[in-house]
Amino acid sequence: MISQLIEKIQKTKAPVCVGLDPMLSYIPECIVKKALGEWGETLEGAAEAVWQFNKEIIDHTWDLIPAVKPQIAMYEQFGIEGLKVYKRTVDYCREKGLVVIGDVKRGDIGSTSAAYAAGHLGHVQVGERTLSGFGTDFITVNPYLGTDGVKPFVDACQKEDKGLFVLVKTSNPSSGEFQDKLIDGRPLYELVAEKVVEWGELSMDGDYSNVGAVVGATYPEMSRVLRRLMPKTYFLVPGYGAQGGTAKDLKPCFNEDGLGAIVNSSRGIIAAYKQEKYASFGAEHFGEAARQAVEDMVADINQVL
Amino acid sequence: MISQLIEKIQKTKAPVCVGLDPMLSYIPECIVKKALGEWGETLEGAAEAVWQFNKEIIDHTWDLIPAVKPQIAMYEQFGIEGLKVYKRTVDYCREKGLVVIGDVKRGDIGSTSAAYAAGHLGHVQVGERTLSGFGTDFITVNPYLGTDGVKPFVDACQKEDKGLFVLVKTSNPSSGEFQDKLIDGRPLYELVAEKVVEWGELSMDGDYSNVGAVVGATYPEMSRVLRRLMPKTYFLVPGYGAQGGTAKDLKPCFNEDGLGAIVNSSRGIIAAYKQEKYASFGAEHFGEAARQAVEDMVADINQVL
Repeated sequence: MISQLIEKIQKTKAPVCVGLDPMLSYIPECIVKKALGEWGETLEGAAEAVWQFNKEIIDHTWDLIPAVKPQIAMYEQFGIEGLKVYKRTVDYCREKGLVVIGDVKRGDIGSTSAAYAAGHLGHVQVGERTLSGFGTDFITVNPYLGTDGVKPFVDACQKEDKGLFVLVKTSNPSSGEFQDKLIDGRPLYELVAEKVVEWGELSMDGDYSNVGAVVGATYPEMSRVLRRLMPKTYFLVPGYGAQGGTAKDLKPCFNEDGLGAIVNSSRGIIAAYKQEKYASFGAEHFGEAARQAVEDMVADINQVL
Repeated sequence: MISQLIEKIQKTKAPVCVGLDPMLSYIPECIVKKALGEWGETLEGAAEAVWQFNKEIIDHTWDLIPAVKPQIAMYEQFGIEGLKVYKRTVDYCREKGLVVIGDVKRGDIGSTSAAYAAGHLGHVQVGERTLSGFGTDFITVNPYLGTDGVKPFVDACQKEDKGLFVLVKTSNPSSGEFQDKLIDGRPLYELVAEKVVEWGELSMDGDYSNVGAVVGATYPEMSRVLRRLMPKTYFLVPGYGAQGGTAKDLKPCFNEDGLGAIVNSSRGIIAAYKQEKYASFGAEHFGEAARQAVEDMVADINQVL
């Protein structure tokens, strides 16, 4: 799977991924009003607004980018109706030829992780048939439970040609609280990185592994060390733009070959029309604003590569 | 919320919780056959089998126990159809007066955790209305991202009278890989425990906090230390029975007052009819077998308290 992602990155010349994390507050009022007018002030109505918003964003950006990353929490907050739109978004993006990274941050004991892996990456057996639940290409995984909690996801990668990004060093302000703690003189995130390399060896796909790592853009010094520790691990890099990471901060996430990382932006793209820079598009043209924001982001990142 | 759970534990004299983690392989063939006969070999069919199974287990055990703990992964593996049955199970258990602990192990950066908290514990605002997604009483939370990833869940507890169990020391074999690593001479899980105490002070409810901890039954020496470190923190204890934890191992999880812990068993109860001990019930009477297994578990635990 990682080779498919790399191919799409090379084709689009865009090591970026659009985060489809639609808070209701990002969605232009005209869309929310129409959806709630039709469905009432209900979870269905909210979910419909999310779907209309996503569709417009995807329709205006799909040809510029290799991948999208829907954050499942933003759908899960609307219960079943929200999750239906998560699935609909995944399916629509895959039809458009986009690689879909489900940002689900799952992780549990072995048998439970196996169920998550089946639902998000693989298949379940029902009678004689094998059926797919959410059918994303990659998901994000939390490593706190250790190898037996991660292994079922790695097995699914190998069996179904799928991929993972395991949380190593996250982009949020408190990420250091546990992740930076020193163990025999080295931060916890380096130990996690070494495990990611070990797990990654079980599912290689060309020069890189199907088992990638989440490495926040907000800590460039750490990215440099992690890049060296994990030469064959692809990085999913959150934190660019709205969270404060700049293109210069991203440089250490990449290898010499210009590969090795895919940078996510959510708010900075999907709510671009709310920024002064893109305000001239107007709320009703939020899709065009998102497209311009993608083009600007790609140019910004490519100048440092 | 923790005071409601404690009240129910005292009323039933049962510090136990039934894990509703229905793998298809646990469900008697007659139920699976009937559901797939009606719905075909589809996700709907699998989900219907899960629902029929759950309902029978709940109907045979609800009056003996204070709480249930559905593991969402076992539903999520069947996609949307599975999640509908998760929701249906949550609603049915709450109607029966059971406290529902959603075992979801969510956790992300702040804004994302806020969305999870809204979906599982709280409400979302849609127009003028506040609506509930899954409406569980407690959920489990993963602390790897630190305070800003956990705080939104704590806020939801305080605002909506709900509860959490934060992963401190999990019951699985690899849990020590990261959780036991020494930081200035003390294991990571103790640092997490201290944070849980800090977070817990923000949402006290009587003698205990709404912010509890997951502490596996499989590591009794560690439970003893954690009990001392977290005197006002309720423990959710997985790992009893099928995972190897015995009643003796549970003792250190409790306080002197006989409170402080609720012990989960999943397979040991819901698939009791598959054990030699309960085989005489027969597969069709799996509900009665589960009831007997609950009674035996309660007696087993109460003898050490």
